[in-house]
Amino acid sequence: MPSTTSSPASDALPTVGDIEAAAGRIAGAAVETPLLESPALNERLGGRVFIKPESLQRTGSFKFRGAYNKLKRLSEQGAAAGGVVAFSSGNHAQGVAAAAELLGIKAAIVMPADAPAIKIANTRGYGAEVVLYDRAREDREAIARKLAKDRGAAIVAPYDDPDIIAGQGTVGLEIARQATARAADLDAALLPVSGGGLISGTALALKAHWPDLRVLACEPAGFDDTARSLVAGRRVAIEEGGMTICDGLQASTPGRLTFALNQRLLAGGLTVADEDVLSAMAFAFRVLKLVVEPSGAVCLAALLSGKLDCRGRRIALVISGGNVDAGMFRRALDRQG
Amino acid sequence: MPSTTSSPASDALPTVGDIEAAAGRIAGAAVETPLLESPALNERLGGRVFIKPESLQRTGSFKFRGAYNKLKRLSEQGAAAGGVVAFSSGNHAQGVAAAAELLGIKAAIVMPADAPAIKIANTRGYGAEVVLYDRAREDREAIARKLAKDRGAAIVAPYDDPDIIAGQGTVGLEIARQATARAADLDAALLPVSGGGLISGTALALKAHWPDLRVLACEPAGFDDTARSLVAGRRVAIEEGGMTICDGLQASTPGRLTFALNQRLLAGGLTVADEDVLSAMAFAFRVLKLVVEPSGAVCLAALLSGKLDCRGRRIALVISGGNVDAGMFRRALDRQG
Repeated sequence: MPSTTSSPASDALPTVGDIEAAAGRIAGAAVETPLLESPALNERLGGRVFIKPESLQRTGSFKFRGAYNKLKRLSEQGAAAGGVVAFSSGNHAQGVAAAAELLGIKAAIVMPADAPAIKIANTRGYGAEVVLYDRAREDREAIARKLAKDRGAAIVAPYDDPDIIAGQGTVGLEIARQATARAADLDAALLPVSGGGLISGTALALKAHWPDLRVLACEPAGFDDTARSLVAGRRVAIEEGGMTICDGLQASTPGRLTFALNQRLLAGGLTVADEDVLSAMAFAFRVLKLVVEPSGAVCLAALLSGKLDCRGRRIALVISGGNVDAGMFRRALDRQG
Repeated sequence: MPSTTSSPASDALPTVGDIEAAAGRIAGAAVETPLLESPALNERLGGRVFIKPESLQRTGSFKFRGAYNKLKRLSEQGAAAGGVVAFSSGNHAQGVAAAAELLGIKAAIVMPADAPAIKIANTRGYGAEVVLYDRAREDREAIARKLAKDRGAAIVAPYDDPDIIAGQGTVGLEIARQATARAADLDAALLPVSGGGLISGTALALKAHWPDLRVLACEPAGFDDTARSLVAGRRVAIEEGGMTICDGLQASTPGRLTFALNQRLLAGGLTVADEDVLSAMAFAFRVLKLVVEPSGAVCLAALLSGKLDCRGRRIALVISGGNVDAGMFRRALDRQG
């Protein structure tokens, strides 16, 4: 998905200063999620793993951070009077809807008809208008552009926007502060990647704190466009037609702004199979006692399936969200044996 | 269950100083669990609810705190050479087993044959010997006493022991410090009650910080022995034969030491039905994104079912554990509609 033209600053890459400003903007509205450690996980992997559960964030995912930062800025600039329009498979939808409700802005969200029911219901629950489309036949961006034009509304892009990236980057600021409070210098950080907003902002914040820290992109098999693009040295699209249970990680090409940052900041990518994702969700249920959605479990899946040697290392891992339907969760529970 | 004679100080009530000493003893071994806030829960209840998720504690429940404090003291006193014996439906079993493993002490745990499979498997996983008994026909304390005598082992009582109470009370110290860091003076605290170790220690710590704070006992219907005893002004037993899905809250009489504290410290009790517990587990899945076992969900169930007016108040709520079998969790998921 290309970036939209909604932001006046959409060509400028965000800085750590922008992330710090975003942290001030979202304070009080966003939850400062904890940084958790599980003795059982540490023992299994032989290192110290610091879990940042954005599943505990307002709306059940990190997306609220970027959405609130963006909408607050639009509001300050007087650019939100006609409302906002977003397109999203679910978590960005909820983030924008909840931020709009808090800030008194009208929101319309274009969502695929096959998005998880919990994500559609929650988006409506925050007072947003939901416009469903057929993922196979319709172009969600065209629908969003028409809505925005008809209403004089601003489009809120899911990741390729400096204000969105800066908002998501507050995850990195918090990890750096929370790990430092425990005297833990991090060696690496793993984050889920779709368009790349979360990982680019978080990498910016973390590498400002620890320049040698290695940031790794975690993607589902068949949707490893960022890993492939990092290898190729340019944005490449993955082939259409792949399937994954990670409904939030189905971008086919890295974002333009996010990849400009990621190319400079990331150390590489790890790819996980859906089976490993389900096993990681089951591990989170059984051992971590956290409800994790498929897209949120890719980093844990990468570690548990042995994609990275953790022995003697200090690794941060972001669980990006917990918005999973009961039906999908049952599939993970079935793996308990 | 009467208290055992294993502790040399078993007749002395613990003090806040004992809880502070316990905090020092368990530091580094126990997890300092976070104090969470959910905007969605706050909005629903009209107040601020601070959730202390001991489900995220080592072994998946608060029980590790008291067990580690007790075993470390036994070890320091040279009283652990013959190992330890405990009887428990599950979470105390895991707490003792994990503490014993960390401290290099042999442990045998007497557990009912119908305890949740996850609790039995985890107890064995920590290296303890598990001795199963028939809840309907056998006396677990007699079995434990014989084992202890044969082996020269110390019995670790589940709650009626000052070192156990002091260890569980570290939950209260952490809540007081974490809430104070957010400038939140608490009005009330809700805790699950079985024998009363967690609530008595936590009440001691919280009321030292906020003398006017009201501490409320939450129990499943049919097992409200503490609520009835508070009303009666003396320890009363509930009738045998009741059933509840809260496998960790089936004590029939308050502990002697715990009730001596609770009679002085508690403001009353709230009773919840199993149906409300399942609904609370479903809410925790859907909104809080936490895996909560039935016994751990009673306080949340009390608030969600309207047992306490939360409007404009600041209330702490302890989720005592997350060790729930997939089968029971599916029952909660079925309530999603």
